[in-house]
Amino acid sequence: MHPFDEAIDLRASALSQAPHEFTGATHPAYANMVGPFGGTTAAQLLQSAMLHPERLGEPVALTVNFAAPVADGDIRLVARPVRTNRSTQHWIIEAHQAEGVVATATAVFAVRRETWSDVEAVMPANLPEPDALSRMPVKGMPAWPQRYDMRFLEGAFPTAFDEQEQTHSRSTLWVRDEPERALDFASLAALSDSFFPRIYIRRRRRAMIGTVSLTTYFHADRALLAQVGTRHVLGVAKALNYRHGYFDQTGELWSPEGQLLASTHQLVYFKE
Amino acid sequence: MHPFDEAIDLRASALSQAPHEFTGATHPAYANMVGPFGGTTAAQLLQSAMLHPERLGEPVALTVNFAAPVADGDIRLVARPVRTNRSTQHWIIEAHQAEGVVATATAVFAVRRETWSDVEAVMPANLPEPDALSRMPVKGMPAWPQRYDMRFLEGAFPTAFDEQEQTHSRSTLWVRDEPERALDFASLAALSDSFFPRIYIRRRRRAMIGTVSLTTYFHADRALLAQVGTRHVLGVAKALNYRHGYFDQTGELWSPEGQLLASTHQLVYFKE
Repeated sequence: MHPFDEAIDLRASALSQAPHEFTGATHPAYANMVGPFGGTTAAQLLQSAMLHPERLGEPVALTVNFAAPVADGDIRLVARPVRTNRSTQHWIIEAHQAEGVVATATAVFAVRRETWSDVEAVMPANLPEPDALSRMPVKGMPAWPQRYDMRFLEGAFPTAFDEQEQTHSRSTLWVRDEPERALDFASLAALSDSFFPRIYIRRRRRAMIGTVSLTTYFHADRALLAQVGTRHVLGVAKALNYRHGYFDQTGELWSPEGQLLASTHQLVYFKE
Repeated sequence: MHPFDEAIDLRASALSQAPHEFTGATHPAYANMVGPFGGTTAAQLLQSAMLHPERLGEPVALTVNFAAPVADGDIRLVARPVRTNRSTQHWIIEAHQAEGVVATATAVFAVRRETWSDVEAVMPANLPEPDALSRMPVKGMPAWPQRYDMRFLEGAFPTAFDEQEQTHSRSTLWVRDEPERALDFASLAALSDSFFPRIYIRRRRRAMIGTVSLTTYFHADRALLAQVGTRHVLGVAKALNYRHGYFDQTGELWSPEGQLLASTHQLVYFKE
């Protein structure tokens, strides 16, 4: 079993007792410096709706708010479909630990129809293939970056915090699960949180950081995800603004063929 | 009283009965074709947390999911602070009408500290002042665009749905409340939803549309909002992707002096 599948493996509570409850746990393979990688937590929250017997369609939007540090151990997920329409469904999801709520999420699921479609954003062009680039060294890093094969074209994690401020924080990289795993909604949600904090790229300076809110729009449907399979996707991320303890990040995840799989945005707390 | 203040005027329920409940109503001055302008609904959801006696700090992130059409009339708002930390607070907010949940929101509030700050996004340069541009004609439009003074530099609402597809959907405009009103968090939340649907700009073709999820990151604090006062702010919006019934929009709201007040993103349902 792939460690990511282990990490998002949830057990449903007996329906008669608590119809909307699932139990999961943090996984050592996706540990961060302290507690778990937020991407796995986001994927668990999404997965609780995916597994829910009343689920309609596929996810189109997910917002995860990280309310408190997640402790290593069990997580109780409460997923409520608060409104189900003909082709859309709205969810409120909470993640609880002993101490209280550690994360919340809202999600929109939908049954999609084929329509006129077009990519208006511009994918970086003339990129070398992943095979032509080296994988980012992960020695000495927490567990979670070791679960990704990242090959940077620009904006790599700084090799030293030399405090040489850069003109921008943009990163462009090929990324996939390590070991390989076919892309699905849960792993796309986790990938949305896999960009290193923009302030490290920009400032090359140590800082305490923590994502407070993460939004992902899933442009890909199941068929498009299947086309990507286990290959690398192209990630692009940058910050727009840093001010008084918070900065934002906007990112894109592209298929090798130039389809925008997801656009993703987050707001991050920082303290230098 | 300004019509926007009337629109976001909420009555708290008697604390002993329902500590987290407020009642508001749709306002005819912000009517859309059918039901209210989504920006006012977003502002009401935010306002229910702003008015809550347990509120900590100022909003930094807001996500509103539009779950069902809002009917003209009363809206019951239930705002729960699900986690309060030392300097951050996490909210789940629901808007109810007779039929059930019509919108949900999550919000992050925070007590900010001064830190290193920088705008990394680029504000369009060498723009004419609002006074040098004409206000968008609002004759024949629904009520809500009449409550904004919009002065377009590019990407105006099409004067005819001539089905001449454009190469992009970008809009740049000066915008303020009409009549003038000093900018605050509630009006910034509403402004985040004031960009016309990108597909109209791009396709110049009639379509049914409906925002399903709207996220706003508030980079401005109260002091910066006060500096803007009643003046126009610069809005910039574009779509990234249209696919199988949904497109996204990413937008920025800038102070005249070049501070990024908010970055805002939404996912929109469409059917041509």
